[in-house]
Amino acid sequence: MKQFISVDDVDNVGQLVDDVIQVKSAANNKIGEGLTMGLLFFNPSLRTRMSIQKAAQNLGMDTIVLNINDDGWKIELEDGTVMDQGAQEHIKDAARVIGLYCDILGVRSFASLKEAKTDYSEKVIQSFVDYAGVPVVSLESATLHPLQSLADLVTIKEFKIDKPKVVVTWAPHPRVLPQAVTNSFLQWIRQTDAEVIVTHPVGYDLNEVFTSGIKIQNDQDEALVDADFVYTKNWSSYSNYGQTPSVEKNWMITSEKMLKTRNGKFMHCLPIRRNVIATDEVIDSSIVYKQAENRIWSAQTVLRNIIMKLKDA
Amino acid sequence: MKQFISVDDVDNVGQLVDDVIQVKSAANNKIGEGLTMGLLFFNPSLRTRMSIQKAAQNLGMDTIVLNINDDGWKIELEDGTVMDQGAQEHIKDAARVIGLYCDILGVRSFASLKEAKTDYSEKVIQSFVDYAGVPVVSLESATLHPLQSLADLVTIKEFKIDKPKVVVTWAPHPRVLPQAVTNSFLQWIRQTDAEVIVTHPVGYDLNEVFTSGIKIQNDQDEALVDADFVYTKNWSSYSNYGQTPSVEKNWMITSEKMLKTRNGKFMHCLPIRRNVIATDEVIDSSIVYKQAENRIWSAQTVLRNIIMKLKDA
Amino acid sequence: MKQFISVDDVDNVGQLVDDVIQVKSAANNKIGEGLTMGLLFFNPSLRTRMSIQKAAQNLGMDTIVLNINDDGWKIELEDGTVMDQGAQEHIKDAARVIGLYCDILGVRSFASLKEAKTDYSEKVIQSFVDYAGVPVVSLESATLHPLQSLADLVTIKEFKIDKPKVVVTWAPHPRVLPQAVTNSFLQWIRQTDAEVIVTHPVGYDLNEVFTSGIKIQNDQDEALVDADFVYTKNWSSYSNYGQTPSVEKNWMITSEKMLKTRNGKFMHCLPIRRNVIATDEVIDSSIVYKQAENRIWSAQTVLRNIIMKLKDA
Repeated sequence: MKQFISVDDVDNVGQLVDDVIQVKSAANNKIGEGLTMGLLFFNPSLRTRMSIQKAAQNLGMDTIVLNINDDGWKIELEDGTVMDQGAQEHIKDAARVIGLYCDILGVRSFASLKEAKTDYSEKVIQSFVDYAGVPVVSLESATLHPLQSLADLVTIKEFKIDKPKVVVTWAPHPRVLPQAVTNSFLQWIRQTDAEVIVTHPVGYDLNEVFTSGIKIQNDQDEALVDADFVYTKNWSSYSNYGQTPSVEKNWMITSEKMLKTRNGKFMHCLPIRRNVIATDEVIDSSIVYKQAENRIWSAQTVLRNIIMKLKDA
Repeated sequence: MKQFISVDDVDNVGQLVDDVIQVKSAANNKIGEGLTMGLLFFNPSLRTRMSIQKAAQNLGMDTIVLNINDDGWKIELEDGTVMDQGAQEHIKDAARVIGLYCDILGVRSFASLKEAKTDYSEKVIQSFVDYAGVPVVSLESATLHPLQSLADLVTIKEFKIDKPKVVVTWAPHPRVLPQAVTNSFLQWIRQTDAEVIVTHPVGYDLNEVFTSGIKIQNDQDEALVDADFVYTKNWSSYSNYGQTPSVEKNWMITSEKMLKTRNGKFMHCLPIRRNVIATDEVIDSSIVYKQAENRIWSAQTVLRNIIMKLKDA
Repeated sequence: MKQFISVDDVDNVGQLVDDVIQVKSAANNKIGEGLTMGLLFFNPSLRTRMSIQKAAQNLGMDTIVLNINDDGWKIELEDGTVMDQGAQEHIKDAARVIGLYCDILGVRSFASLKEAKTDYSEKVIQSFVDYAGVPVVSLESATLHPLQSLADLVTIKEFKIDKPKVVVTWAPHPRVLPQAVTNSFLQWIRQTDAEVIVTHPVGYDLNEVFTSGIKIQNDQDEALVDADFVYTKNWSSYSNYGQTPSVEKNWMITSEKMLKTRNGKFMHCLPIRRNVIATDEVIDSSIVYKQAENRIWSAQTVLRNIIMKLKDA
């Protein structure tokens, strides 16, 4: 693996999922000793931050963590700018220098949710890919979250259900959120044998790049019937970019709704707004902690593969 | 030791103090190798933060440090809430997930000083104890600071004074402070052979749970007579919770006041407001740096004991 | 080396530069194992922060990083103050305690740019030197930046130009900046065989301590003629302390200006304001990334020398 920005960096998704399950049960192998993992955060992070640091340390790597806007400098993203305003360092200089100090870089950025074109150009993570000169691992970007998706696939696989029905459902949230987790999950889950249905209120369409060929329903109740997994997430509209049109029915996942499923497992990437996205009861009997735990082993497997590639080179 | 939240987690305080003194003079033993120590800060910290990280690293542990409100998410403490306001993650989800990523957790929280009941319920640290599934070490909680108290007992013990007279005195401070350090010190020191007296201005009563059976005086001058150790600390009122009634006399510790003692040693947990809590002269000839240094060895002994318990299991 | 606060801590600058070049090509030697490097930041930092952490880890040291104002307490600098205002801990207490927790300390502070006397007294770093009791490494102080200067000398040396002409030129910047990088570079470069010229607009005089015996020109075009290296940096006035008098001509470095040089290499410590300090074209064909990379090896050599001294003691 040369980098890990999206599912396209993976040769064989099924093999990678199996690798994670194998890493999870194996003793840690310190193949990262003598290597430095840089972890750059443009935005807050809890699970991703801790699980990637744990994974890197499990492999024997040294880690350097930087909250880039607080610890370092304000970053300019646009090329050719006269930098006489607030931004103190251009992303291409920061990326190139940080690449000199680290063997592998993890980068966490976030959508602005102002313009689809800007967010989907993935300026931040792409600048690191272009200028850092070392492998870049996405710790969630503006439009994708591949480490989360890999952990999700591992979690699903561990239930050993043949051709599971996976329902991806929108749920309410008081803030405007990006489409990254859902986009990414769809990229990954379609590479498995799962039957996938997406359900969301009218107006919450996702980018067709991710949904093409996938069944979309606007009736949540109907979508949930016989689901093996209920992957729940809030997102803002893609077509009316970053908007959150009002929704009449209550899309929160409740125990009653879960009764329509085939003993369906509730999934969410966390953090979760309790009693907004889903009730306490649903969350407390869910598999969200299995997903969270699999974040370590997914990160560790991705880092291991990148290190092996580095050592081959 | 299964956890370290208060003196009640210690079987034998005298033995633990002796263990610290022994750890201090011994070479570090890397019994923590392969284990991860998570350090979670809800509040600022200097000595505790550095000494626990040093202690964990001395034992060979990997450390992950998180300023939870800045690096991670705003945390909801109440059960059953509809989380449609500012808080992004419920403490039971955060605790459970963080527990998956770490072998031992250190947690630093702070009193709100609004309601005694809330602070003394120790919601934050108790949530980690209840949900994290791994041993929790208090890095100061709303009402206790056991790592400080253990270091204080070690410092006192090192002077080898038989039945020392230990005077715990209130001193002035421009801000409203919790009772945690004093509460905790009283819990610990009463388990030794010391003669303990608490002195504070009228209106600054502590919670009787901690003072019962201990002599209280409102006359600081009289209390200081023949003291071997003068443990100084500001706190706000417990009975009139979080209030700071005006005080007529100047309770700052001066060299003149120290003359009443039996060559008494001035103690303070730091940080200290110079020329408010005590004069420069008093602080500069005090044993506060010995206390601070003993923070490392106390933390290291506690972690060592927890690791040994983990390995036994 | 007992500490690293300025060039005066170095016995033989030429030897140190050669040591860096040798360290750069050698395998890392873990002579720092079992030692703790404390890294204290009073101000943001990217290159210095990452390169010193990398250097310490390359040598096998444990690192503890502290953003002292955010993670810890607000620090009082003045002696004898009645600390009843915002500052929570006196620098002499903080320094002494932190010195107990670390074997070597790196400290980053910054100029206030209000009073020359205050800044040039170097209160922050000097307090750590005075009270910490362990070797202190400057990670840039109010008036000097020796780790940068060492990396700069290494970068110049690697071009193997006999008696190079090094032009230090002022360049524009939207904010008021300290003189530290330039002061320090002059301290170091004058210890080599380079011919040094400083050029700046009228009113931007530096402290004579650093420029005495060095040729100063106010005509940038003339100064640049036949330069081998163009060391560019903004600074505010020393004589009219912290002021930024208006400048008529445009002092930004352009490709046209570089044509006057002898195939001159453009140097800058970064972060750089693109199209303000210099044009994109100049920066993109510069040696600024070589300087940045040499920060690792310079830091590693300085730490190695200090560790060797510690082990000898």
